[in-house]
Amino acid sequence: MAESRITPRAEDFASWYQDVVIQGDMAEPAEIVKGCMVIKANGYAVWEILQRELDERFKALGHQNYYFPLLIPQSFLRKEAEHVEGFSPELAVVTVAGGKELEEPYVIRPTSETIIGHFFARWIQSWRDLPLLLNQWANVMRWELRTRMFLRTTEFLWQEGHTAHATHEEALEEVLRMLDVYADVAENVMAMPVIKGQKTQSEKFAGAVRTYSIEAMMQNGFALQSGTSHDLGQNFGRAFDVQFQNREGQLEYVWQTSWGVSTRLIGGLIMSHSDDKGLVLPPKLAPVKSVLVPIYRKDEEKSAVLEAAHRIAKETGSKVDDREGQTPGAKFFHWERRGVPVVLELGPRDLASGNIVVKRRDTGTKQPVPQSGVAATVNTTLEAMQRDLYNTAKERLRANTVLANSIGEVEDILKDATAERGGGKFVMAHLKDAAACDARLKEFKATVRNIPLTDEFDGAGKCIVTGETVDRRVVIAKAY
Amino acid sequence: MAESRITPRAEDFASWYQDVVIQGDMAEPAEIVKGCMVIKANGYAVWEILQRELDERFKALGHQNYYFPLLIPQSFLRKEAEHVEGFSPELAVVTVAGGKELEEPYVIRPTSETIIGHFFARWIQSWRDLPLLLNQWANVMRWELRTRMFLRTTEFLWQEGHTAHATHEEALEEVLRMLDVYADVAENVMAMPVIKGQKTQSEKFAGAVRTYSIEAMMQNGFALQSGTSHDLGQNFGRAFDVQFQNREGQLEYVWQTSWGVSTRLIGGLIMSHSDDKGLVLPPKLAPVKSVLVPIYRKDEEKSAVLEAAHRIAKETGSKVDDREGQTPGAKFFHWERRGVPVVLELGPRDLASGNIVVKRRDTGTKQPVPQSGVAATVNTTLEAMQRDLYNTAKERLRANTVLANSIGEVEDILKDATAERGGGKFVMAHLKDAAACDARLKEFKATVRNIPLTDEFDGAGKCIVTGETVDRRVVIAKAY
Repeated sequence: MAESRITPRAEDFASWYQDVVIQGDMAEPAEIVKGCMVIKANGYAVWEILQRELDERFKALGHQNYYFPLLIPQSFLRKEAEHVEGFSPELAVVTVAGGKELEEPYVIRPTSETIIGHFFARWIQSWRDLPLLLNQWANVMRWELRTRMFLRTTEFLWQEGHTAHATHEEALEEVLRMLDVYADVAENVMAMPVIKGQKTQSEKFAGAVRTYSIEAMMQNGFALQSGTSHDLGQNFGRAFDVQFQNREGQLEYVWQTSWGVSTRLIGGLIMSHSDDKGLVLPPKLAPVKSVLVPIYRKDEEKSAVLEAAHRIAKETGSKVDDREGQTPGAKFFHWERRGVPVVLELGPRDLASGNIVVKRRDTGTKQPVPQSGVAATVNTTLEAMQRDLYNTAKERLRANTVLANSIGEVEDILKDATAERGGGKFVMAHLKDAAACDARLKEFKATVRNIPLTDEFDGAGKCIVTGETVDRRVVIAKAY
Repeated sequence: MAESRITPRAEDFASWYQDVVIQGDMAEPAEIVKGCMVIKANGYAVWEILQRELDERFKALGHQNYYFPLLIPQSFLRKEAEHVEGFSPELAVVTVAGGKELEEPYVIRPTSETIIGHFFARWIQSWRDLPLLLNQWANVMRWELRTRMFLRTTEFLWQEGHTAHATHEEALEEVLRMLDVYADVAENVMAMPVIKGQKTQSEKFAGAVRTYSIEAMMQNGFALQSGTSHDLGQNFGRAFDVQFQNREGQLEYVWQTSWGVSTRLIGGLIMSHSDDKGLVLPPKLAPVKSVLVPIYRKDEEKSAVLEAAHRIAKETGSKVDDREGQTPGAKFFHWERRGVPVVLELGPRDLASGNIVVKRRDTGTKQPVPQSGVAATVNTTLEAMQRDLYNTAKERLRANTVLANSIGEVEDILKDATAERGGGKFVMAHLKDAAACDARLKEFKATVRNIPLTDEFDGAGKCIVTGETVDRRVVIAKAY
């Protein structure tokens, strides 16, 4: 596909995002299926690395992977009242199969609490069967009206953890442990700082007692909910009759949790680090960490350059771009758009001087270094880039987080921010967890992102809507 | 879940299979969703290893992973006449989404040639864009009437490779190269010998010019088609208008291939190696290769045994089963049913003698060995077991492959074979690739499995139905 212009962020952030996704070979829209995308080679390779990082952490904590059916009998969703209310408008329904109208339609899973609840009831009898810790890697479907690649698509890929416990306390520990795993991957792998906190009652998962999230700030100041972990209490246990005999011999409903992150993370990754030249990938998530572009004009230069190129590529773990019929300039452009962290340039003059040029994607700096030490330079450059991307994002978050002490002030700060033109902030204000307070923010299209787990500001204060005392400031922002 | 009896193979092979799958924690039926199963922890862990083995080989050959939408507009299937005819009876159809009747229904992908054809047309313009080599890991759905866990389920997990080439010759090379990859994984990872060959025209993939398969023999003598690789010719290229400018500047349709293996492989694995005690896993596919069961009666024995157990487990890479409240006997039983290749037993008497008992799953042999050399013994035992499982399966295939020179002879050999009672054979006979010949075999429920790529018997001969000369014997069998 022909490569073309990337809209600058300052001109239109939303168009910039779409351009970066497409030009970076991450995904492209699949207009023929409502709100869907094709995840392309570079995007899927990033997802594979993210999956591996998450999966290793899940397994180290004792979770095992299972796979449950894609289709769920429609009646299952009705068993939990809030759950069906939350998901009904978004369901895709299979009514015909094998050439016949179905007696009971199936829905394509929007999430799997209900079907897993059904099996938990079959598998759990005693406290000895607990905790049951499982995870599923799967596709899910939610028929959304407004979609954007990675951020919100009707079909998306995700993992959903589902666990059952003997006590509420133990379940809550699991909920917060998995939130920590998400924060760890976001910050230490994706270089994307996040705020951990609890969602308000209005914003919690349909069917949960409470929901926790990690929230990240994008370059336009908008928030991206990047992962959620739910304390389901005994709601699904009651709905699906998942009872166990406790150590005292009495029957009790299990305490459940669920938690998930999705391909949405890739959208967050892109909007955290990429620039007007295209995709920027943190080294830990880059499918190709470094590429070596050999440069030669005359045929007599070619063999010497290529020989050295392959030798150095082997030492540095780089990919050699020795495609014929492409200029070095076209190759640099190609890898820049795909977010490769380090590009090495090697030409006849470098052979003569014993140097090689190391170019870093995020800063654009070019540095000639002795060929003998290039492997170490590549490694330290990758480490520095990983660290700097995180620090830059962290500083952006700090600089765009502001305090407000009245609802008018919050509205003034946020009212003109748009996903296209930017101007978003994280506004920290005292606000009660009450439907009326959430509703007041909706008037200017903002939401409480979460109530942070740790209070980093000034403790208790008066709610800016009701005047009642609440114990800490919450994060208010416009969000994806 | 309570563990119960496994039906012996000689009593009812089909019940035996179902028992092994369930008792081995591989899967269980999900009756609430027609023809579906839940893949459980042990089954999914085996699938993950198989995926990794396949994926590494695909990538080494230049394929990249993509992800395409689950839903396909119904009209897409109609674009290729044979394709729609083949798949129409098996489709699950989404007619309602987001609370509204859809103008054009979507089908859940039974396979993705059509939607990928649509995108190939967008991505391919010139010979420079070729070959395009991609693969997708996904769930697919085919509304089958008779289902069996892993072997045939309405939803299953698989990979589907899709490639586009500039010439038919190059496409055909790809088709056979991927068939070789499948045979390599089947034989060298799964320890399951296979016969590579071409399907008859009646049995080829709907929309292909020709289909190649690998066929394995199960313990009841039935055949299992374990992987297929299709030469699609220009059929989908024409249907989706995938044209490219060749080196001479002329427009031409691309030559495509597709190839796939699925969770069905796990069914083949089970029916190749497992026994009346339950699951047997070849070491290369075992999620847990060895388990150490510590044995002690008195409390004063416990700490010395456990200390040695953990030391030896570390040296051998074994998992220590130190669950409280379970007898050693219950633990042996537990791991035996789950197919763990090697179980180590360590008790007070072993501590005194400096030995440890090594038990091998397939042969049931128990051997005391010095603790100092146990790591090497475990490794050689795993290697021997992998080799022996293959050799046993290979010998079974040899012993149950017979020649026949008339259709009456073929019928006599196969007519009484059933999936439950066994008695299946691979009957090698000369048979023309013609619809009438396939139809004749259907009279006694047999099929041509494939026309082997290499002639291992007596060359050309007269077709047992038409009398015409054909160049080699084909494989006739009853099959799953």
